[in-house]
Amino acid sequence: MNSFGRIFRISIYGESHGNQVGVMIDGCPAGLAISEDDFTEDILRRKSGAKGTTPRIEDDKPILVSGIFNGFTTGAPILISFHNKNTKSDDYKDLFSFPRPGHADFTAKMKYGGFNDYRGGGHFSGRLTLGLVAAGVIAKKLIKPVSVNAKIVEAGGESDIEKAIDNAIKNEDSIGGVVECKAENVSVGLGEPFFDSAESLLSHIVFSIPAIKGIEFGSGFHAAKMYGSKHNDQLIDVSGKTFTNFAGGINGGITNGNPLVFRVAVKPTSSISKAQQTINLNTGQKEELKIKGRHDVCIALRVPVIIEAVTAIILADLMLLEQKLPGIISDNSTR
Amino acid sequence: MNSFGRIFRISIYGESHGNQVGVMIDGCPAGLAISEDDFTEDILRRKSGAKGTTPRIEDDKPILVSGIFNGFTTGAPILISFHNKNTKSDDYKDLFSFPRPGHADFTAKMKYGGFNDYRGGGHFSGRLTLGLVAAGVIAKKLIKPVSVNAKIVEAGGESDIEKAIDNAIKNEDSIGGVVECKAENVSVGLGEPFFDSAESLLSHIVFSIPAIKGIEFGSGFHAAKMYGSKHNDQLIDVSGKTFTNFAGGINGGITNGNPLVFRVAVKPTSSISKAQQTINLNTGQKEELKIKGRHDVCIALRVPVIIEAVTAIILADLMLLEQKLPGIISDNSTR
Amino acid sequence: MNSFGRIFRISIYGESHGNQVGVMIDGCPAGLAISEDDFTEDILRRKSGAKGTTPRIEDDKPILVSGIFNGFTTGAPILISFHNKNTKSDDYKDLFSFPRPGHADFTAKMKYGGFNDYRGGGHFSGRLTLGLVAAGVIAKKLIKPVSVNAKIVEAGGESDIEKAIDNAIKNEDSIGGVVECKAENVSVGLGEPFFDSAESLLSHIVFSIPAIKGIEFGSGFHAAKMYGSKHNDQLIDVSGKTFTNFAGGINGGITNGNPLVFRVAVKPTSSISKAQQTINLNTGQKEELKIKGRHDVCIALRVPVIIEAVTAIILADLMLLEQKLPGIISDNSTR
Amino acid sequence: MNSFGRIFRISIYGESHGNQVGVMIDGCPAGLAISEDDFTEDILRRKSGAKGTTPRIEDDKPILVSGIFNGFTTGAPILISFHNKNTKSDDYKDLFSFPRPGHADFTAKMKYGGFNDYRGGGHFSGRLTLGLVAAGVIAKKLIKPVSVNAKIVEAGGESDIEKAIDNAIKNEDSIGGVVECKAENVSVGLGEPFFDSAESLLSHIVFSIPAIKGIEFGSGFHAAKMYGSKHNDQLIDVSGKTFTNFAGGINGGITNGNPLVFRVAVKPTSSISKAQQTINLNTGQKEELKIKGRHDVCIALRVPVIIEAVTAIILADLMLLEQKLPGIISDNSTR
Repeated sequence: MNSFGRIFRISIYGESHGNQVGVMIDGCPAGLAISEDDFTEDILRRKSGAKGTTPRIEDDKPILVSGIFNGFTTGAPILISFHNKNTKSDDYKDLFSFPRPGHADFTAKMKYGGFNDYRGGGHFSGRLTLGLVAAGVIAKKLIKPVSVNAKIVEAGGESDIEKAIDNAIKNEDSIGGVVECKAENVSVGLGEPFFDSAESLLSHIVFSIPAIKGIEFGSGFHAAKMYGSKHNDQLIDVSGKTFTNFAGGINGGITNGNPLVFRVAVKPTSSISKAQQTINLNTGQKEELKIKGRHDVCIALRVPVIIEAVTAIILADLMLLEQKLPGIISDNSTR
Repeated sequence: MNSFGRIFRISIYGESHGNQVGVMIDGCPAGLAISEDDFTEDILRRKSGAKGTTPRIEDDKPILVSGIFNGFTTGAPILISFHNKNTKSDDYKDLFSFPRPGHADFTAKMKYGGFNDYRGGGHFSGRLTLGLVAAGVIAKKLIKPVSVNAKIVEAGGESDIEKAIDNAIKNEDSIGGVVECKAENVSVGLGEPFFDSAESLLSHIVFSIPAIKGIEFGSGFHAAKMYGSKHNDQLIDVSGKTFTNFAGGINGGITNGNPLVFRVAVKPTSSISKAQQTINLNTGQKEELKIKGRHDVCIALRVPVIIEAVTAIILADLMLLEQKLPGIISDNSTR
Repeated sequence: MNSFGRIFRISIYGESHGNQVGVMIDGCPAGLAISEDDFTEDILRRKSGAKGTTPRIEDDKPILVSGIFNGFTTGAPILISFHNKNTKSDDYKDLFSFPRPGHADFTAKMKYGGFNDYRGGGHFSGRLTLGLVAAGVIAKKLIKPVSVNAKIVEAGGESDIEKAIDNAIKNEDSIGGVVECKAENVSVGLGEPFFDSAESLLSHIVFSIPAIKGIEFGSGFHAAKMYGSKHNDQLIDVSGKTFTNFAGGINGGITNGNPLVFRVAVKPTSSISKAQQTINLNTGQKEELKIKGRHDVCIALRVPVIIEAVTAIILADLMLLEQKLPGIISDNSTR
Repeated sequence: MNSFGRIFRISIYGESHGNQVGVMIDGCPAGLAISEDDFTEDILRRKSGAKGTTPRIEDDKPILVSGIFNGFTTGAPILISFHNKNTKSDDYKDLFSFPRPGHADFTAKMKYGGFNDYRGGGHFSGRLTLGLVAAGVIAKKLIKPVSVNAKIVEAGGESDIEKAIDNAIKNEDSIGGVVECKAENVSVGLGEPFFDSAESLLSHIVFSIPAIKGIEFGSGFHAAKMYGSKHNDQLIDVSGKTFTNFAGGINGGITNGNPLVFRVAVKPTSSISKAQQTINLNTGQKEELKIKGRHDVCIALRVPVIIEAVTAIILADLMLLEQKLPGIISDNSTR
């Protein structure tokens, strides 16, 4: 299903080289102030332009199509659109028969019987994450004073990220990275045991972002090497605060009042300038593939703001479900 | 929500020291042969008894309450119950006021206002995974010839797992581990881009299992250190088979015909014999806590069969959705 | 899917002549006092025994399997079971080949390829409504002070219902009826425009009850004959109360603060003593069918308590979603 | 939730006097040929223009924003937009304080705390049904050779519908009507017992259409007056065809191979030219209200094509779920 969320529910649509990309948000409470300017910062953070990111530049101006009236959310579905302008579909003409290694070209063609829009990856493009970022902007406003911050902490195996990128550019290659996300001021009680654990919901939406290969909460994979006596976080007081935070802020699927902490692994960008080998799907012959197009050296650089967005979306959903959004509701005196 | 799955949908219920635990399965096609014996092997694998696992022994005999008639599934909801017999609730009397470090005692009490059944962790107990294993038995039969196999590959940071466990027992401590899962004969085309990516669905249900701290697909966290030219899996032929499998069998959220591979990190068992410190929730005072009860030294030992179960459950759901279950349907001549 | 509800979510299971029937309730808040006695009255109202109802007598004692601890809901899934005792499966031996007119025998056999449990209608039996009534008991307690009352207002086309039943018994035939339901003290604001309109949710669950052929809200089918100037309910004051209630308490899918009113049409019981004609599904030959078994002359007599139950279930769901259940939440001081 | 459907899932958005209205369709299979011309006929049928319908004329040209490529559906979400052009918002300036009788003005204001877009009914407007009709066009193509036809059978209590409308116009009043819908070539086996019965799903989506007050299947409310011996449809042969069709094509929630037949009651249009009384929500005073704007005398005239659309949407969903769409899938040779 192309939707996620139980109360605050998002759906994304569009194609890389189609007319638009965008997001529909269902279940946002009425009365939240939203203007186009609210989107500027996060869209800029997601946008290409920095060293190592693609030279395709779109203005990425959000069009607030529905669900907002006189500067406030109305309670009706919110549709936010972004028009695609800077598309060069000729670059992708051959991809229908020559799937790019690491991309979804092969699986998409098989799944949709060749009817998928393959231009620039079509609906599979990272450009669809623009809708996630837009929904994240609204979610972040909604969940205040909860704050969500993500940053890249490693690229290509290095903590000196600029150096790693320079190396990759020199090699006509691409690199991956690790992004860490922390949410603060999260109240106790979000999430449920088992299927709707906070980790289940967060990992579900995080793996909706292209290029993610792993996620770990708190101690993560390191937990597998630890003793229980060390790993168990001990309470400081009755508020639930603990001395350590190996749990990553979650026990039994439920937030415990400590910061929510997780890390994700981002694979190296699949599109590289170097020649690669593929199979011609019509003939079965091996073929050399030189990917033209325009691509990021390290897609991980653009991931933090997307991780923040999806985290805020999940928190908004859980806080609405648990009736922990006093701000909006008190603004809304007749509700 | 206490349910997961879109077509093959499971719900678990029960408490550690209540009357029963069990699972309801909705959406299982009619005509699948099921007998009580089908459950024996997997329930035994999940059961305690090996060195390092809890001495609480339950017979764990499945009662096929509904949805099965004359040895075949009927298409109606399947309820499978397990009666709890070997409960010692006295061990847990104090937990209401003295939350055990690493457990959900604190979060459960806060979330449910103190009304939760705290005995043995209540609904949060690992005993609830018995229902997952039972549903997994049915899912595994359904998805044949797809096979799912998981094994523990590391415990307490060691590949010599027996040694690691002996050390932990000696130290009155507990250890974590890493479990690897592989599904073979998976067809191309399961999963969707974005929210219902194969990784999203698998991670969602994997994090429903208590004690999981991380998941990674294919290259996983190592991807963050790799070059794209190395990481991109190259096609062998038009079937989709690739020379390497850093993708873990998934591109763009969709299975690509290679084995599905992922690893999960399991934290050290939270219950340890060693004295620990907690807070008396009534007085706010620090208290020393000696956990009596009966516990596993390394819960990771019991996790592989549960990981197999939830993986089979997701595959069953996706294969039903994509109409890739020819076996059952051809048995069912009038359908 | 065998579940309904977004927050307060129910699933029913079981077969007429199987081991049990029952219901799983997910999403019931913690802290609601529930005892077995709470179920007595409504189960008795649903039970057979009055003139015109089947002589199959079950004790219908509810077993509170999970989700209730020390007399209160815990917030975990509630499973309520009823054991079947008084089953006479021999009566149904021939139904597999000789579908009863008006019943689901034919459609069930076709849909499930002959694997369905056909004894007494199996999972299609009206006995499954026992689970609805049990969930309704909990929902009714939850939504207080909202009250829901349904009654039969017509049977076999007569308002003198006893006379109509006597006639039907004399004719070895069965009759239908009309049930009216009214919910009072419903607050303004439940339901949503379009897909989750109060009418959509209520009609969805009402048509889940076997034998229902129609539903109408407020003016209902009579609206089609009215002028707008007459049909438009005029406001008495700013509370939303109106002079008339042709809207049935709902405008734009949202409750308006007036009583919620709807009526349902119940068809005559399909099982009758009179000889009927059917087709032998093996040979294609016409056959005379005399239904043995035990049946109601007027199933509509047993419907009011079921209509109340499903109405209360929907109201509980909507009130939880809209955070309109102050009672429970204030009991629950730490939430 | 602003979405409906399990596999073929639709979401509608927009406001009467906002920028757009439209629909998102998720889960439509790839490979269905779709062009803008496909929409012409049904959009015209829904459109105003005939006697008794509003003089607001929009060109209602569908913009196929996403999910369609080279004339075929791609399997990605389909967004279809309609721009609003002919809006006269000044007509509605006072509605914020003076709720129109029979409309959702009061409930919307209460539910959304006054933040709703009230112009022309905002998101509650019948104009939103344009998205339903657009989705219906796609659904109708998908379900071929199943056909769905609805027609008005009564207006203002008369079968001479033109006469009834002339009378209403003369009286500056509005009238309701009854619409009958029939689906033919429906295969056996769509729908499920209880919560996802064909009647439950159809009634759910039918009551999503504004102005519907009742629905009845087959014999409907008349069933309540019938004897069982008459009401039970008798089989003609093993195909499931019956001599009569009092069941309306459904037994036990499952289609039985006979035509699906239901009728809906449409209330008289709430907006009338005649003066009415309302309450000033600011002062609590009674006020006379003369509704300007542009309105239908008999909204029922525009309902048949909408009823057809939602019926086709449900059938598409059920046929996809039951794998009964051979056409599309066989076109799609590599799937």
